[in-house]
Amino acid sequence: MTAPFDFAPLLAPGTPAPAVKWTGFPTYNFIGGHNDPKHLPVEALIEAATAVLRREGVTLATYGLNSGPLGYRPLREFLAGKLKGHAGIECSADEILITSGSMQGLELVNSLLVTKGDTVLVEQETYGGALTKLARLGAKVIGIPLDEEGLRLDVLKQKLEELKHNDVKPKYIYTIPTVQNPTGAIMGEARRRELIKLAAEYGVMIFEDECYSDLVWSGERPKSIYALAGGEGVIHIGSFSKSIAPALRVGYIVAKWDVLARILALKQDAGSGALEQMVLAEFCSRHFAAHVPKLSKALHAKLQTLREALAEQFGTSAEFGNPPGGIYLWIKLPDTVDTVKLAQAAQAAGVSINPGPEWSTDKDYARCRLRLCFANPEPETIRKGVEVLAEVCRREFGVPVRSSNVDKR
Amino acid sequence: MTAPFDFAPLLAPGTPAPAVKWTGFPTYNFIGGHNDPKHLPVEALIEAATAVLRREGVTLATYGLNSGPLGYRPLREFLAGKLKGHAGIECSADEILITSGSMQGLELVNSLLVTKGDTVLVEQETYGGALTKLARLGAKVIGIPLDEEGLRLDVLKQKLEELKHNDVKPKYIYTIPTVQNPTGAIMGEARRRELIKLAAEYGVMIFEDECYSDLVWSGERPKSIYALAGGEGVIHIGSFSKSIAPALRVGYIVAKWDVLARILALKQDAGSGALEQMVLAEFCSRHFAAHVPKLSKALHAKLQTLREALAEQFGTSAEFGNPPGGIYLWIKLPDTVDTVKLAQAAQAAGVSINPGPEWSTDKDYARCRLRLCFANPEPETIRKGVEVLAEVCRREFGVPVRSSNVDKR
Repeated sequence: MTAPFDFAPLLAPGTPAPAVKWTGFPTYNFIGGHNDPKHLPVEALIEAATAVLRREGVTLATYGLNSGPLGYRPLREFLAGKLKGHAGIECSADEILITSGSMQGLELVNSLLVTKGDTVLVEQETYGGALTKLARLGAKVIGIPLDEEGLRLDVLKQKLEELKHNDVKPKYIYTIPTVQNPTGAIMGEARRRELIKLAAEYGVMIFEDECYSDLVWSGERPKSIYALAGGEGVIHIGSFSKSIAPALRVGYIVAKWDVLARILALKQDAGSGALEQMVLAEFCSRHFAAHVPKLSKALHAKLQTLREALAEQFGTSAEFGNPPGGIYLWIKLPDTVDTVKLAQAAQAAGVSINPGPEWSTDKDYARCRLRLCFANPEPETIRKGVEVLAEVCRREFGVPVRSSNVDKR
Repeated sequence: MTAPFDFAPLLAPGTPAPAVKWTGFPTYNFIGGHNDPKHLPVEALIEAATAVLRREGVTLATYGLNSGPLGYRPLREFLAGKLKGHAGIECSADEILITSGSMQGLELVNSLLVTKGDTVLVEQETYGGALTKLARLGAKVIGIPLDEEGLRLDVLKQKLEELKHNDVKPKYIYTIPTVQNPTGAIMGEARRRELIKLAAEYGVMIFEDECYSDLVWSGERPKSIYALAGGEGVIHIGSFSKSIAPALRVGYIVAKWDVLARILALKQDAGSGALEQMVLAEFCSRHFAAHVPKLSKALHAKLQTLREALAEQFGTSAEFGNPPGGIYLWIKLPDTVDTVKLAQAAQAAGVSINPGPEWSTDKDYARCRLRLCFANPEPETIRKGVEVLAEVCRREFGVPVRSSNVDKR
């Protein structure tokens, strides 16, 4: 038998703590970008896989490179059409790079622009995964507060001016303008145009993340920032995770070729999985337009279930809006509640939530806030999960005082 | 219209040069890990996709996490069985992490252990992609010469001693012991055991890359280093790229849980594509054992075609062995030939080759050497491609003097 090997002295500095063993999904799962399994188009995906493999399966022998390193061409062509109709983006298939989820998009854009000590601007409440990646890179992250329409440009301008005064050039402004994560806000076209002007004035890139933009209840949304800027100074990312299935891990980057050529040079992974791109292209060209409204309708119903459950269980203790799309709800509890502690206690009771501080650069502001994702659990699970969460919250923090119109004091 | 945006001042330092536009495959393609399209099991993959999607397709809604973050459990279970029978590795499915190709395996192991300025030891001739990644990380890379059996342990010991004397602790020894890339060498069991002892003595990890180990003509191979070390101090990676299809981008890491838990924490990509894992598992459990020998036989025949073509076209000007497996041949041309220049001239004539210096830490030694991959082109294309390569080489460097027994002076 070989003696145990101590690898600890060899670890790179800053390596995160070890992962814990997986113990399965929580009973009440309100975290993660999971989707509604009832709206996973299994039979249509089987048809798509069969058709595309039979026609082009042999190209898997050559890294799918018949389409070049940007990714499966029919998928890029589908996207070019979809982005034009949906987001107003005029781009060719050669200005689209398929990525392994929009997570890889985030990483590639960071690799392109951000090095240790660099400053980036983000929405004060924003995607936790983006914050984690920036922290690991050692970037200085400045959060800009949001209002009902998203990024507050008055504060942004002030911050840009201040940074300029201190000779600091921020690398990008990261924004989720269409169904903001976690607030659900949609930035109007006028503010988008203002943002473009402001970013250009200070020579900062705009990094536009439109992961959730397919899931707008009305089906209507403003033109993307990329579209309004004619692509100048903007990098746009998106994903099929929320509209089809997160486990396919297919996202994309849209950028002008001079920017995209730099990003492509950084994508040294021998390509993203070709089968998933091929199946998606085959599926989407026939079914995307019909699939998304059906999914949206189901998600919208789940959101209302969640809002009703919260009103019933938390009463006035929970404040939240009525977001126009997405898969999450951003909630404020009374100031006495610490949602990091609440998340730990809830976890023990089988309820997973995102505590606000993980989704914000302002840990104090977010302390009593949380994010609940509603796409995955069934309506009955949503109702029961919120009931359990309210019980845990009452036990730990004394609120809500009333649930289901019954005084619990 | 928006004014052009100058993003150059925002680029992170050290960003590689922009990618060039893809212009399609070269006529004679002797580079890359492409496989034989005639041995891509399309119909069996369709059957596998249909069966697994119908049975478990809805799990795509939840990131495939029913199997946990290590990857699709049936694929990990298949691997545990295959690795035991094939490489002598005793591990559980929970000591296997599915990655997006073995490229991601390389990146994760580097993230775990290597930071700028660190020293790593590699085989003097080795996988070019590994060298590129290490260069980008700013690692100090020391090449250890090879003989017919791979890594020369006498030189390795001397180098380890020298580094110890200088208070330098190298992070790992990267080795491709079974069908070495590019030389094709297979390290015998005795030398593997010696290597394990040596690495343990100096407290250095062994990073074992077995991407090509399925493709051994005889079907027989020594136990893996991981197996012989009982997993202590060794990280093992492998891939389905060479045995099934490179475009599926499915590889794996085998490590003891305390190491793997660290690697898993670094894998922040929301999982590798689940559909490809599911299809592979379904396919492999039924067909892997029969598929690989058939593929190997076809590849072996192509190798012999390549060797014959080289002998015919280059005569004594080309020196090469008869590797026991793999998809590449490592070739020495006369000392007057500069293969980097040859590669450029050949490219213009439609022939792609890997010049030796890209696959070696000793640029002088490798200057007159090159790697030709033979899995993808058809026999007739191999013959014609080698003929064109000989013509280009003669035009540029005056050798080979004779081709097909005809004096070309």
